[in-house]
Amino acid sequence: MGEAFVIKIGGNIIDDEKKLFSFLESFATLSTGAAFVLVHGGGKSATRLAEKVGIKQQLVEGRRITDAETLKIVTMVYAGYINKNIVAQLQSRNCNAIGLSGADGNVILAHKRKATGGTDYGFAGDVDKVNAAFLNTLLEQNFAIVLAPITHDKNGQLLNTNADTIAQETAKALSVFYNVTLIYSFEKSGVLLDAEDDTTVIKEINPSFYEQLKSQQKIFAGMIPKLDNAFAALGSGVKKVIIGKAESLELLINGAAGTTIIQ
Amino acid sequence: MGEAFVIKIGGNIIDDEKKLFSFLESFATLSTGAAFVLVHGGGKSATRLAEKVGIKQQLVEGRRITDAETLKIVTMVYAGYINKNIVAQLQSRNCNAIGLSGADGNVILAHKRKATGGTDYGFAGDVDKVNAAFLNTLLEQNFAIVLAPITHDKNGQLLNTNADTIAQETAKALSVFYNVTLIYSFEKSGVLLDAEDDTTVIKEINPSFYEQLKSQQKIFAGMIPKLDNAFAALGSGVKKVIIGKAESLELLINGAAGTTIIQ
Repeated sequence: MGEAFVIKIGGNIIDDEKKLFSFLESFATLSTGAAFVLVHGGGKSATRLAEKVGIKQQLVEGRRITDAETLKIVTMVYAGYINKNIVAQLQSRNCNAIGLSGADGNVILAHKRKATGGTDYGFAGDVDKVNAAFLNTLLEQNFAIVLAPITHDKNGQLLNTNADTIAQETAKALSVFYNVTLIYSFEKSGVLLDAEDDTTVIKEINPSFYEQLKSQQKIFAGMIPKLDNAFAALGSGVKKVIIGKAESLELLINGAAGTTIIQ
Repeated sequence: MGEAFVIKIGGNIIDDEKKLFSFLESFATLSTGAAFVLVHGGGKSATRLAEKVGIKQQLVEGRRITDAETLKIVTMVYAGYINKNIVAQLQSRNCNAIGLSGADGNVILAHKRKATGGTDYGFAGDVDKVNAAFLNTLLEQNFAIVLAPITHDKNGQLLNTNADTIAQETAKALSVFYNVTLIYSFEKSGVLLDAEDDTTVIKEINPSFYEQLKSQQKIFAGMIPKLDNAFAALGSGVKKVIIGKAESLELLINGAAGTTIIQ
């Protein structure tokens, strides 16, 4: 089995052209002759555009409530502006990138999340199936795949979907064909013992250490869904999960930086 | 050599959900087991969004001047909103559609149009090359391809490109692999002798008849670039060009409606 890498880049990287270009430079070099998938979130552009056109954004526990107008905005910004600019930047670095939403080639099938506990998330999608066979044919043709966090339900409805989840589900699905490393890259150097101090990276976390860190409240709350996702991925066939700084992609892949999550 | 169809749908169809869905219904049925490419323009959504966010749109001879802010808008609307909604609608009709911009898989390479005669079109792209080999691998896997009129220059720059031209260049490039029929579909029944009367469709136009119609000023000015494109396509390997009503797609393909352009 060959190796594949599924790499999520966080919103703060997308909003910072210098950091983004540095990441894309590494991605383009490292993906030559290898199987690479990039999953991007949205950054602040969607919120800014929504403000400009006068659509009020509502967040519940960090998740955007996707009404019909907001769905339009995120489809435009994520699947259009961000996805195509990343693809064009990779193409300029001789990386044959192809950008897809979940609707394209039925790559990611999802269903509209049911309202729970009084919260209706609107057109938010929970992933049912990632079409790994098609992704594999593209990877075998040496395309680098760039996934936007927009999915569909096969009934004509586009859905806004969490990019961390898309990365996790894609990594799991590709495990049929590859030894997959899943990388969550963002602006920090890894999982930190002190959220304010970038030198306090935890090198390795296993399940019992994770429980200990949580019970001691040493894990920054925003990191918990990422780590839960990471352990779920490892439990479903993904070989390795690494969390770290987007600009250090090569070091993350070599195990020389970031936090490695192990079972 | 098998047959392929490259079909451009006009902006007025995209703006009219009933007409668009009727077209997509036919497209989904007809494209089963056949090689179909859909090229869409933008309709009025881009202009509306530009107005909402306060970007002034400037047109010279019907062509939009694409400044940096306008490029953002058309990338969002064409490659994001319109392209992904068409793909999701086709997927719901069991048509395995995949939506691409010219940057994806380096499908359409273009260069920024030079300012001529005092007019700088901004980020407008003129097509250099359509990557027909990649399109062919997708068509062979039974994907229907949906092209947005956004291209790139391989230097990281996205470019706004005329959808009629993309349809023509794609039809020409695919002629290496297929007997290609190029269809320009829009809200009228074909090339009309009387622009106000939809029953005056000209069944067939050859070059000498075209010259005659032009000299008698019987061709509506807006139709001339389309017909010039049509003859150019026929001169470059495309087998047939048909102009007619989007909702009559099956009749157009069967030669039972619309205007056929012949050499």
